[in-house]
Amino acid sequence: MKRKITLKQIAKELDVSISTVSKSLRNSLEIGEETRLKVQAFAKFYHYKPNNIALSLKNRKTKTIGIIIPEIVHHFFSTVINGIEQVANENGYSVIICLSDDSFDKEVLNMEMLANGSIDGFIMSLSKETQFRGDFHHITEVINQGMPVVMFDRVTNDILCDKVIIDDKYAAYEAVQSLIDKGRKKIALVTTVDYVSVGKLRTDGYTKALLDNGIPFNEDLIIKIEDIDTCEITIGKLLEDKAIDAVFAVNELFAVTIIKTANKIGLNVPNDLAVIAFTDGIISKYSTPTITTVSQSGIKMGNKAAKMLIERLESEEDEEDENYKTEVIETHLIERESTN
Amino acid sequence: MKRKITLKQIAKELDVSISTVSKSLRNSLEIGEETRLKVQAFAKFYHYKPNNIALSLKNRKTKTIGIIIPEIVHHFFSTVINGIEQVANENGYSVIICLSDDSFDKEVLNMEMLANGSIDGFIMSLSKETQFRGDFHHITEVINQGMPVVMFDRVTNDILCDKVIIDDKYAAYEAVQSLIDKGRKKIALVTTVDYVSVGKLRTDGYTKALLDNGIPFNEDLIIKIEDIDTCEITIGKLLEDKAIDAVFAVNELFAVTIIKTANKIGLNVPNDLAVIAFTDGIISKYSTPTITTVSQSGIKMGNKAAKMLIERLESEEDEEDENYKTEVIETHLIERESTN
Repeated sequence: MKRKITLKQIAKELDVSISTVSKSLRNSLEIGEETRLKVQAFAKFYHYKPNNIALSLKNRKTKTIGIIIPEIVHHFFSTVINGIEQVANENGYSVIICLSDDSFDKEVLNMEMLANGSIDGFIMSLSKETQFRGDFHHITEVINQGMPVVMFDRVTNDILCDKVIIDDKYAAYEAVQSLIDKGRKKIALVTTVDYVSVGKLRTDGYTKALLDNGIPFNEDLIIKIEDIDTCEITIGKLLEDKAIDAVFAVNELFAVTIIKTANKIGLNVPNDLAVIAFTDGIISKYSTPTITTVSQSGIKMGNKAAKMLIERLESEEDEEDENYKTEVIETHLIERESTN
Repeated sequence: MKRKITLKQIAKELDVSISTVSKSLRNSLEIGEETRLKVQAFAKFYHYKPNNIALSLKNRKTKTIGIIIPEIVHHFFSTVINGIEQVANENGYSVIICLSDDSFDKEVLNMEMLANGSIDGFIMSLSKETQFRGDFHHITEVINQGMPVVMFDRVTNDILCDKVIIDDKYAAYEAVQSLIDKGRKKIALVTTVDYVSVGKLRTDGYTKALLDNGIPFNEDLIIKIEDIDTCEITIGKLLEDKAIDAVFAVNELFAVTIIKTANKIGLNVPNDLAVIAFTDGIISKYSTPTITTVSQSGIKMGNKAAKMLIERLESEEDEEDENYKTEVIETHLIERESTN
C-alpha cells in the first residue's frame, strides 16, 4: 500500500512546524535556504503531492461546501452552520464541517485535507491562534489555486476574499448607548483578549459611545477574560470595588456569570445593575432574569455566506476574481429583563 | 466537464425516492421489477458509480473519521464531537462532520458523499426519521463494503456494529428513584415522541421506578412533546390540572421551560415542584434555579466511540468482523438547586 505523505508527517520527520513545511514548499523567502531545500528534497523523495485543487476544479464539481469554524460548543457558530445548510441544500450542495479548535495547525491541516478534492469552496471563521499569529498563508494558497473562500465573523483585512461580518463596532456602540439612554453612568466592559478581531472592534464601539456622551473613559472598567472557568473572581472584584451600574458583556456566558455573581453579593439585576450581552443565544432566553442581547443573526450570516460562495462557484467569469465584497449583516437589540 | 451523476439526481429525474434508487441499484426485491429495471438502466446510461469504498480502502488510508449527527444546536452532540476530536487527534486522525438535520434522505446522501473516498470509517447517531422508518439499508451497505461504523446514543438493534450507549432505562430509573427518595409522590414525565429509541427507554425506566416503589402508574402524567416552541401550553396544563410535585424531563430545554412555566403560575421550584433533566448541558448550569441533571458524559461517549473505531481501523485481522461490542457509558446524577 502506497500511502500519501502529508504536511504533518513531513513536519514531524524534520522536526519543524507545519507552517515552515508549507512555506518551504511554496519556496517562501521567509524560510531560511537550508531548511527550505531540506523540506523540498524530503517532500520530493516521498512524492509529496500538494493540493491538486486546480485539477479537481477543472475535472469535476463536488457540489460540497467545506466549513471551518473555531469551536462547536458555541450557539453562534451552530446557528451560522444552520444558516449555511439552509441555502446550501436549497441549491443542491452538501456541507462538510471541520473544527480548528482555535488552533492554527489544525486550521492549516483541515484546509489541506478538505481542499484535496473533497469540496468546491470554503466558508470559514479564523481561529484565535491564526488571528494572534497573523499568518494566513494557508488561505492565500487555497485562493491562489482558484478555490473560493468566504470568511465570516472572525475575518482579516490581510486576505482579499468575500466576507460576511456584522458591524461589531456599531453594534457595541448601540448597546452601550441604550444603557446610557436608560440613565446608567458607570458602565463596565467585560470582553475577551484583544487579538480576536471582533473583541477589539467591540471595545472601540464601547469607548466611542462613552466619549460621545461625555462620560469619561476609565480603563479600570474594562475586564479582559481569558478563561471562562476562572472569571468569577475577576468579575466579583469588579462588582464589589467599582460601584458600576451597568455591564456590557461581549458574550452571553460572561453575562450570565455576571448576573450570578451579582446575585451572590446582593445586587439586583436590573435594578442595581443592568446587563447587556453580545450574541443572542439559548442561555439569554432561558436565564433568570432573561438577558437583553445584541442579536448577531447567525442564521442570516450563514445564509449570506453560502449565497456568496455559491454565486462565485457558479459564476461563468473565472477571471473577474478581484471583485470581492464584504457584506455587513445588521444587528438589533433584543430587550429582555436584564435592562430596564 | 463530465459530471458524476448522484443518487439524488437519479431520484429527481425518475421522480422516485432516494431510498428506492439506492435499493434498486442493489437489486432489492423490495422494489417492483419495473422501477428497479428503470433505475438500473438510467444509472447505467449516465455511468452512475456506486461508492468505490473497497477500492479506496485497499489503496489508501485517509486517516479521517466521518461523523454524522442529527443536529448541531445541541450541547450533547457538541460534547460528543469534542470527545471524538480528542482521541482522533491523539491518534493522528482528522474529523469531518456532517449533519442529517434529522432527515433520512440527508443521512443517506451524507453517507454516500463521505464514503466515497473521503474517510476511513463512520461514527454516527441516527436521525429521528431513520429511526421512525426503520430503514437502515444505507448503513448496511457501507458496512458490507468493509467500512467500519460505530453508532452512539441513537442506535438500532437492526444493525450489527460497534455501539456506544448509555443505559437510558437505568439512568431514568435512578433519576425517578431519587425524586421518590426525596418524598415526591406524583411524578410526571415530559418526554419526546416514542420512535426516538432513547425516549422509549427513558419512559420504561420511569415506569419501572414508580412500580418498584408501589406508586400507581398514571398515563395522564406522561407528556410527549413534538415541538419545543409550542410546548408551554401543554406543560402549563399539566402543572395546573394534575397537582404534581415533581417532573422528570428528558432534556434540559424541557426542564427549563417547566421551571419558567411553574414560576409564572406561582409554583416554587424546588419547594412545590422538583425538576430533574436528562442531559447535563450549559442551560442547567446557568439557569435559576440551577437544574439537577443526569449527566450523559458526551465527552466520554465520544472518546469511547473514537477508540473503538480507530482500533477497528488499525486492527490487522480483517476477517474477525463479527466480534462487535456495545459499550455502556455510566451516567451519574448531578444534584443542583431544582431538587431538594
